[in-house]
Amino acid sequence: MVEEMEGAPLSIGGTALSSRLFIGTGKYGNDSLIPDVVRVSGAQVITVALRRVDFAAQHDNVMQHIPEGMRLLPNTSGARTAQEAVRIARLARAAGCGDWIKIEVIDDSRYLLPDGYATAKATEQLVKEGFTVLPYINPDLYVARSLVNAGAAAVMPLGAPIGSNRGLKTREMVRILVDEIDVPVIVDAGLGLPSHACEAMELGADACLVNTGIASAADPLRMAAAFAAGVQAGRDAWLAGRGVSSAQAQASSPLTGFLDG
Amino acid sequence: MVEEMEGAPLSIGGTALSSRLFIGTGKYGNDSLIPDVVRVSGAQVITVALRRVDFAAQHDNVMQHIPEGMRLLPNTSGARTAQEAVRIARLARAAGCGDWIKIEVIDDSRYLLPDGYATAKATEQLVKEGFTVLPYINPDLYVARSLVNAGAAAVMPLGAPIGSNRGLKTREMVRILVDEIDVPVIVDAGLGLPSHACEAMELGADACLVNTGIASAADPLRMAAAFAAGVQAGRDAWLAGRGVSSAQAQASSPLTGFLDG
Amino acid sequence: MVEEMEGAPLSIGGTALSSRLFIGTGKYGNDSLIPDVVRVSGAQVITVALRRVDFAAQHDNVMQHIPEGMRLLPNTSGARTAQEAVRIARLARAAGCGDWIKIEVIDDSRYLLPDGYATAKATEQLVKEGFTVLPYINPDLYVARSLVNAGAAAVMPLGAPIGSNRGLKTREMVRILVDEIDVPVIVDAGLGLPSHACEAMELGADACLVNTGIASAADPLRMAAAFAAGVQAGRDAWLAGRGVSSAQAQASSPLTGFLDG
Amino acid sequence: MVEEMEGAPLSIGGTALSSRLFIGTGKYGNDSLIPDVVRVSGAQVITVALRRVDFAAQHDNVMQHIPEGMRLLPNTSGARTAQEAVRIARLARAAGCGDWIKIEVIDDSRYLLPDGYATAKATEQLVKEGFTVLPYINPDLYVARSLVNAGAAAVMPLGAPIGSNRGLKTREMVRILVDEIDVPVIVDAGLGLPSHACEAMELGADACLVNTGIASAADPLRMAAAFAAGVQAGRDAWLAGRGVSSAQAQASSPLTGFLDG
Repeated sequence: MVEEMEGAPLSIGGTALSSRLFIGTGKYGNDSLIPDVVRVSGAQVITVALRRVDFAAQHDNVMQHIPEGMRLLPNTSGARTAQEAVRIARLARAAGCGDWIKIEVIDDSRYLLPDGYATAKATEQLVKEGFTVLPYINPDLYVARSLVNAGAAAVMPLGAPIGSNRGLKTREMVRILVDEIDVPVIVDAGLGLPSHACEAMELGADACLVNTGIASAADPLRMAAAFAAGVQAGRDAWLAGRGVSSAQAQASSPLTGFLDG
Repeated sequence: MVEEMEGAPLSIGGTALSSRLFIGTGKYGNDSLIPDVVRVSGAQVITVALRRVDFAAQHDNVMQHIPEGMRLLPNTSGARTAQEAVRIARLARAAGCGDWIKIEVIDDSRYLLPDGYATAKATEQLVKEGFTVLPYINPDLYVARSLVNAGAAAVMPLGAPIGSNRGLKTREMVRILVDEIDVPVIVDAGLGLPSHACEAMELGADACLVNTGIASAADPLRMAAAFAAGVQAGRDAWLAGRGVSSAQAQASSPLTGFLDG
Repeated sequence: MVEEMEGAPLSIGGTALSSRLFIGTGKYGNDSLIPDVVRVSGAQVITVALRRVDFAAQHDNVMQHIPEGMRLLPNTSGARTAQEAVRIARLARAAGCGDWIKIEVIDDSRYLLPDGYATAKATEQLVKEGFTVLPYINPDLYVARSLVNAGAAAVMPLGAPIGSNRGLKTREMVRILVDEIDVPVIVDAGLGLPSHACEAMELGADACLVNTGIASAADPLRMAAAFAAGVQAGRDAWLAGRGVSSAQAQASSPLTGFLDG
Repeated sequence: MVEEMEGAPLSIGGTALSSRLFIGTGKYGNDSLIPDVVRVSGAQVITVALRRVDFAAQHDNVMQHIPEGMRLLPNTSGARTAQEAVRIARLARAAGCGDWIKIEVIDDSRYLLPDGYATAKATEQLVKEGFTVLPYINPDLYVARSLVNAGAAAVMPLGAPIGSNRGLKTREMVRILVDEIDVPVIVDAGLGLPSHACEAMELGADACLVNTGIASAADPLRMAAAFAAGVQAGRDAWLAGRGVSSAQAQASSPLTGFLDG
């Protein structure tokens, strides 16, 4: 978590962001929904798998659906090694996608879990090349530290496996990253409902990235609005400072009988 | 839960409510905060313990802090029997508090749990007298049914003991009420964070009542805004229809390696 | 929960029981498994739905599979009113099933939840007739109190709906009953795994009743042994007094580096 | 998890173990309790921090309390780097503690979380030197894989921070290790109650190591027995194959009214 003035916008790589909900572009039945999802969610950052981009195609290209002014966060989905991630990042920049990059290095076809060590190597290289690097990680304190040392602009710990909609199953470890890490902590993957994102923000996460939770809803636009509200609710609750919780009841008003005396 | 047209306002006793967050007046360090909490939360319904109202006092009366136009929901806090609840309700109406009444019959000083049978008796009587009755209950299917049969305008199952901020500990039973009960289900008590209220709404609850969660926060105004957003997020998610959750990962994009071939 | 000397056996209606695992007879693919389940589980109390007993049948009668010496706990499954429960209890006694009776009054075909008020009425009547009454209830403090006042020998709150294998979803309320009720608290229904039963016992429950969790396992005999061990583990943990839990780590050994100095 | 014949003993580094509960030696008020804890728990493997061993002392040496015939598992607690862990392991073997070693490399004083990369380096070295290596890890799939490739005899993922008694907070990731890793998975740290250990075993973990959960109980001997039973219960449940869990109720007996017709 970053220490900042209360109510200050999130800052990533020198860019101030008023929205703390990042969104994705995968799994939409129809990519033409994307502009409306962007509008309704208020998101300012959108991730796209570079391999889904067919730069030759005039039509049927996910890029054509991303509104002007969005901060593009290309990701290295499909990379199985640090080298592959580095190559994809360079391709993204060369293709005009800018210098932000979300590193995903995944060599696990079943749970799509990220390889922390390879991610750290790719981060180190890409930071040297001037990228603003946001790595997707298992919430491991040492991996997060090594990424901060390598110059990562944020860390993106998973809440649950990609696309699983299972919620903040890594709560205990995300809480530790929030305590211990001095770059923004952006929870990414597994958040299937707004209450999941809200819970992450209440713990002190700096932002959330949601793709499947929105794209797989029956009504993605309404779900996008719901996630935006959930993230805002959790952020405000974190800033507001929750009351204590207690095992017994605490009366809202004096306990003497009303009709006594 | 009530079946209704998507996006329709909540209707209680014939009154349409656009806000699904009800608030309370207890436990504020300074009651003069209440008008701002009302404003920020967007709440249209506010509950007040009749015993806290000193109608003789010109000053230092919680009533003076409740803005015009709010739907007042006096409660029978302090009642230990059905008869006491009925008497308090009548006093409330005679004092000009209107004909809505939240019945609380509590004969348990430690956990402040409601007595379902006594609550049903008081409800039956007060409905006959023309009150719009919202009873506070343990989430028990038979108690809820008997209240519906007695003419209750809604049921208010607890999430956890009053003032405990513990969250939706009765999730399983609230879910059953939502499935089985045809009047609005308003989760009341124990919701300490916006994610708790959001979760209740995602399950299909029709509204939430929050007092301690807001009043005990370090910054009650910001927490009021947070709860308002959390309730809205949960409502929208319920309407949007969540995606399925799965034990394994579901890739957002094709799994073949990007750099293959 | 009953206060008792540490290590003392459970006492129900004057009968001392060394085993705190009660079992059921429903849902076995083959009732001839029952004697082995009894043996392996070490159970001393077994419940049987009277309606499953065909006293005329020489064969294919669940009763023939219940070993000698077991305490029979006939239940009133199928009763939808207090009167029906009372009639079934009387039939059970007349048929030689003894004077213990588990009252189930269920008028809900979907979740099979018990009707607390009707259960209390049946309990009152049957206690007067000399039965040892163990009522199945939703974990509601007032229902439990009224049952104690009516002379119930124990209360049997549900962990989750019958047969659902969902675990101790009512944990918060069971904990309150353990604190507040002075007859044995026997968690009944929904316990699908030994860890669920263990958790109930760790909270201070006096015993557990398990049917579906055992009968629906691929290997019911091994699962019966597992539940017996889980109940014993939880009971011992309760008696042993757990250590505190903490948000941070607590080193098992001094934290100065081993190789320092 | 290792695939094995049902009911076969756990095998670690060629040693067959009938007990799946490993214990520790830290935090006992009085180390003279240890022999009784060993006896009651049935444990065959016991871990000891080498830095707590004062080989010069005739008395007040934790080693003198460890019964003959126990498999000693010295640990490298206090090591902050791979090199330190390797040196401690060599010292342990030189001191006659045998060739099993539990690697802990911790450079985090607040949560005592293990450094996966350094642990992998130490493992690689020590396996070459003929040790039977059991590394303590955050449940990360890639770290676990690299340890298996390096020749680790087992992996020991944490349930929660050391000494926290918080339970199996890493459930989701431990479940994945059980699915994906072909050496024994031994859950170590954070298990504060028998139900926690039972849950880990029900998921398919091969064993559990418990220290604080036992040592911090008011009655450590009874708690040791409780954990032994909990581990056995969970193992048997895993072997027995649990029934399905369902959102609604599943009647144990036919649902037609008993007194109908």
